[in-house]
Amino acid sequence: MTEPHADSFDPSASSLSGQVAPEVMEELLSVRGSIDNIDATLVYLLAERFKATQRVGYLKARYKLPAADPDREVAQIARLRRLAEEAHLDPAFAEKFLNFIISEVIRHHQAIAENHEAESEQVGEPTSGR
Amino acid sequence: MTEPHADSFDPSASSLSGQVAPEVMEELLSVRGSIDNIDATLVYLLAERFKATQRVGYLKARYKLPAADPDREVAQIARLRRLAEEAHLDPAFAEKFLNFIISEVIRHHQAIAENHEAESEQVGEPTSGR
Repeated sequence: MTEPHADSFDPSASSLSGQVAPEVMEELLSVRGSIDNIDATLVYLLAERFKATQRVGYLKARYKLPAADPDREVAQIARLRRLAEEAHLDPAFAEKFLNFIISEVIRHHQAIAENHEAESEQVGEPTSGR
Repeated sequence: MTEPHADSFDPSASSLSGQVAPEVMEELLSVRGSIDNIDATLVYLLAERFKATQRVGYLKARYKLPAADPDREVAQIARLRRLAEEAHLDPAFAEKFLNFIISEVIRHHQAIAENHEAESEQVGEPTSGR
């Protein structure tokens, strides 16, 4: 009952199969196993991060606060660049990464704000002035 | 001796300061503290991921393997979408995220291959046919 199903993952999937010496393929697959473990961790960590930013989005919608917070973003970027240097990660990449995440977060926040406004209108609540 | 220096991080930096009720600001800062912890983890995890892909890049350069591996990428994307669903993360975002990382990795691999080729030429090693 351990038959692979349609979306089962083959960790040894590679266009290089058969073109590489077995000992090289073995090392490649070992490193890729670590990458796969890191990627699973990244997915779960990103899910947790979006849970936190959903909460921020809800607070912003509830109290009619703007979606963007420039002073916060400046502080975040400076900190991530410094952390990246400590971790020997390219600081420019860390900044690009944060901007990539933040643009997704702002998209979420706008959606939350629109939903919140639509719901407020349905229950006849005033949509501004709080 | 705990004076803040030029690049010290202010976790309460916000363009919203003074515009928000103290109890709302307190909750916002609490959630942002969690986001900051997650971001530090992400930076260190990405640094570790790039260490692993540098190793792959070195193997590819050493054995003259192509930078891209389409079958591997297809398997990775399908797996990450499935993991994203389990983690309640938007699978489309997870795929966009992996593509973002992979494009950086391929950039690194090309740089490694170019360096490797330059070094091989310097020591008079043949650059192809292995």
